[in-house]
Amino acid sequence: MKRKFAVVLVSGGMDSAVTCRIAQKTYNLAFLHINYGQRTEIKELQSFHSLADFYKVKERLVVDFTHFEKIGGTSLIDRRIDIPEGLSDKETPSTYVPFRNAQFLSVAVSWAEIIGASVVFSGVTEEDAAGYPDCRREFFEIFSKLVKIGTKKDTKIDILTPLMSMMKKDITLLGTKLGVPFELTWSCYRNNDVACGRCDSCLRRLRAFKKAGIGDKIEYELQTQDLRP
Amino acid sequence: MKRKFAVVLVSGGMDSAVTCRIAQKTYNLAFLHINYGQRTEIKELQSFHSLADFYKVKERLVVDFTHFEKIGGTSLIDRRIDIPEGLSDKETPSTYVPFRNAQFLSVAVSWAEIIGASVVFSGVTEEDAAGYPDCRREFFEIFSKLVKIGTKKDTKIDILTPLMSMMKKDITLLGTKLGVPFELTWSCYRNNDVACGRCDSCLRRLRAFKKAGIGDKIEYELQTQDLRP
Repeated sequence: MKRKFAVVLVSGGMDSAVTCRIAQKTYNLAFLHINYGQRTEIKELQSFHSLADFYKVKERLVVDFTHFEKIGGTSLIDRRIDIPEGLSDKETPSTYVPFRNAQFLSVAVSWAEIIGASVVFSGVTEEDAAGYPDCRREFFEIFSKLVKIGTKKDTKIDILTPLMSMMKKDITLLGTKLGVPFELTWSCYRNNDVACGRCDSCLRRLRAFKKAGIGDKIEYELQTQDLRP
Repeated sequence: MKRKFAVVLVSGGMDSAVTCRIAQKTYNLAFLHINYGQRTEIKELQSFHSLADFYKVKERLVVDFTHFEKIGGTSLIDRRIDIPEGLSDKETPSTYVPFRNAQFLSVAVSWAEIIGASVVFSGVTEEDAAGYPDCRREFFEIFSKLVKIGTKKDTKIDILTPLMSMMKKDITLLGTKLGVPFELTWSCYRNNDVACGRCDSCLRRLRAFKKAGIGDKIEYELQTQDLRP
């Protein structure tokens, strides 16, 4: 039986890389990447294409969301706001990009309906939902209803989030077991060459590798002593 | 008391022009226009700015959704697919742009959260829902829930669709009563100079004016005899 197509949202980070691998077991893949003007887009786009090459994915769509630069209001995009150092403990960190996942998922669904894909995969995790309300499980449940009512009668597109309830450590272990090339992924919020090792995203990545007892092959400017493998 | 801000999705058509007028009664306005590569964008963008000038709106955001051209699959964008002539009776016409409203509304909500607007207005009508599933009342109800769960705890953004249950004839009458400058609006799916008078959108506009017993001041290439005022 011919495999169905799945659109996978691929930021180029660890979670999306593992999600690709899970999706690949069942579906032909179509990779979607959104450039929203974030500081590290050069590196993220490179990771996107490296992962697409690794998984032999021909169907690739890169969407330029330049309006996020006009909208502003987040340190991930606005160079006048510093990327905070350390693990975030704020309710909503400055790296919050309002309603980002709604925009990303909507494009994914539009594309899925055109190419006849039956699934959209997102590597979102509930762990991120503390600071980012559009990462909540309930957000994805409601979005699934929106897709059902807002597409053609004969269209059926499921939104799948296989990592939703997993902790980063377990994602690291799972990815390693599945042979996910984490060295091709990018997590740093700040740099486009060597990962800073100090932003929330670097620290969470380092902590995950540390807890999993696995070495991270990418290079860091700085690693705090207790996070070194 | 200082007026709150509302983001209004302004395509440049009749419905959005009337929606602006309704929103203006209560809110300071911020106008959002999406260029998704549609054939008539030159004229729609002109209408957007003309309406913004008319309503004295300084806050304007024009978003370029060029990815719709990459995604394709709709006659509104793809020049290789003809715009059909006559009133549409198909379940899903070729002018359908998959999940368009989800993308538009998501950008509106992102912008609203950044500028602190408490409302997003859309000029959508249920009359369009026959061919466009993302114009359904239920779609907007679910989207409202999505906004509630997917934005910050202290954010409260209502999605308002004041024309939802109105027929085009009644929108024409209401707009005329409220002094809406319909001569600044654009409805034609096909042309950027003189309205074609033959596409579904022109025919529905002409029929609405005819039923309302009001003259349409814009110029048409052709008007079928029975729709002349």
